[in-house]
Amino acid sequence: MNFLRKLDKTIHKNNSLLCIGLDPQIEKLPEQFKKEKYPLFAFNKSIIEQTFDLVSCYKPNTAFYESQGSHGIMQLKLTCDLLRSSYTHIPIILDAKRGDIGNTNKGYVAFAFDYLGADAITLHPFSGKEGMKEFLDQKDKGCIVWCKGSNPGSGEFQDLRIDGRPLYELIAKNVVNDWNYNKNCLLVVGATYPEQLHEIRKIVGDEITLLVPGIGVQGGSVKAAVEQGKNLQSKGLIISTSRSILYASSGEDFQEAARKEAVKLRDEINGFR
Amino acid sequence: MNFLRKLDKTIHKNNSLLCIGLDPQIEKLPEQFKKEKYPLFAFNKSIIEQTFDLVSCYKPNTAFYESQGSHGIMQLKLTCDLLRSSYTHIPIILDAKRGDIGNTNKGYVAFAFDYLGADAITLHPFSGKEGMKEFLDQKDKGCIVWCKGSNPGSGEFQDLRIDGRPLYELIAKNVVNDWNYNKNCLLVVGATYPEQLHEIRKIVGDEITLLVPGIGVQGGSVKAAVEQGKNLQSKGLIISTSRSILYASSGEDFQEAARKEAVKLRDEINGFR
Repeated sequence: MNFLRKLDKTIHKNNSLLCIGLDPQIEKLPEQFKKEKYPLFAFNKSIIEQTFDLVSCYKPNTAFYESQGSHGIMQLKLTCDLLRSSYTHIPIILDAKRGDIGNTNKGYVAFAFDYLGADAITLHPFSGKEGMKEFLDQKDKGCIVWCKGSNPGSGEFQDLRIDGRPLYELIAKNVVNDWNYNKNCLLVVGATYPEQLHEIRKIVGDEITLLVPGIGVQGGSVKAAVEQGKNLQSKGLIISTSRSILYASSGEDFQEAARKEAVKLRDEINGFR
Repeated sequence: MNFLRKLDKTIHKNNSLLCIGLDPQIEKLPEQFKKEKYPLFAFNKSIIEQTFDLVSCYKPNTAFYESQGSHGIMQLKLTCDLLRSSYTHIPIILDAKRGDIGNTNKGYVAFAFDYLGADAITLHPFSGKEGMKEFLDQKDKGCIVWCKGSNPGSGEFQDLRIDGRPLYELIAKNVVNDWNYNKNCLLVVGATYPEQLHEIRKIVGDEITLLVPGIGVQGGSVKAAVEQGKNLQSKGLIISTSRSILYASSGEDFQEAARKEAVKLRDEINGFR
C-alpha cells in the first residue's frame, strides 16, 4: 500500500502521531536480552508488542544495526519482517539518511524497499533532485528529505542565507515544488527549532507531512512541535522519539514502563492537536 | 596506521593515484561467479589480485553490498578482511556517504572502523561539524567530506551563492579551517567539474587530499582532473573509477582486461602529474 495512505490510516486507527524509533543499543538492553541470539530483534519485539496500538509508525535507524555488522542487518530484517507479517497496517520508516548519485542509489533502494520492505526512507538533499531520482521514482514509498536537523550545530550549512532566506527554506521549497512529482515527499524538521518548523509549515502548505525528531532527550518541546508543525487538519506531522520510551526502565518492568511512557506521550501530543 | 600516512606510502610504492571502486553488481559479473556462495567477494578477490600493485587504495561503496542485505554486508566484510590480512599496505575507503547526528553516528563509526576495519569513510556535510564529531574525533581515520558531486544535478544546492560564493566553496573552507582539527579530513570533488576542482584546490591549499570520482563512464577528463586537482608535490589527489575497470570485459578474460585498463589509467594519470 502507498506509504502516505498507510500512515494516514494508522494515525486514525491508533489516534496517534507518535513514531517510535527502534534504535536498540546492546549495552542499554535489559539483562535478559544479552544472552539472546538476536538481542536487538528480541528487544524490538517486546517494545512492539507493548506499543503497536499507540503509534502511527515505527522508525528503525540503520546505524544501530550496522554497528553489529551483518548480524545486526539480519536483526533489522527480522524486525521489518515481524512488522510486515503481524502488524501489516503499521508503516516502517527506515531512518537511513542515505543519498548518493544515480546508479549507486539503486543499491540503497533495493536495500530499503526490496530487502527490508520498508515503506519510507530518510534522505540527504545534497546531491539534488537529479541525483536522487532512483528514490523519488518509487511512487508508493515515502521519501523523507532532511531539511532542518534537530542537532545544535545544524545551522552551520542549513541556516546559511541565500538571497536573504536560509538554505533549509530553499530545500523545503524545492522538495515541495519540484521533487514531489509522485506526491511521495516528506521533510525532517527538528522539534528543537519550533520557529523554523513554523516557517517550513507555511512554505509547504497543508499537504506535506513533517517528521519531527528532537523531543525528549534532545530537549524539544512537544507543545511547540505540535502547534508549529501541524497542518489545518491537526495532523500532517509525526513526532518521533526513541530513548525515552525504549529505556524508560532498565529493569524487569521495562515493557510496562515503555508502554506507560508511550501512552503519556501519545496523549500529550493529542492534547495539543 | 594513520590513513593519510598509509595512503601516501602506497601512492609512492605503487607510483599510483588510482583508486578502484569495488562496486560489484551481481547481474554484471562474469558467469562463473554467479554460482559462488559469495559472488561479490569472489569477484572482488579476482580484481584485487590483478590490480593490487597498481592502486593507491580501494573504495567499496556500501550501496552495492546493502542491496544484497546481510549476505551482502558479509561479503563487504570478507573483502575488507582480505585487504587487511593480505594487502596490509593498501588503505580501504568505505564509500558510505553517511551522516546523522551525535549519538547515532557512533553506530556508523563502529560499522566502518571496528567491524569492517576501513581506513576512511565518505561523509555528508549536512549536519555540520558538531553533528559529525564522532567521525572527526577518529584521528587515524580519514573523514572524506562530500563537497562537490560529480552528478549533473549536483548544483541544485551545492552551487547556491552565499555572499557571492558557491556553497561548495564554503564547505571546503569550513572543512579545512574548522573540521580538520585532527588533520584527518579530505574532500570529494567530481572530475566532471574541473573549474570547481581548481577553485577548491586554491581554497584548501597544498595539504588537503581530494578524492575525485567522475572520470570514465561519467565523462570527466583525466587530464583536467589531474591538472586542476593536484597539489604542488604533484599528488594530494586520488582518482577513482569503478565500472571501466571492473567490467572492462565480461568474458573469461575479465581479469586481464581489468589489469590492462588499470595499467592504462594509472599511466595516463601519471602522465599529467
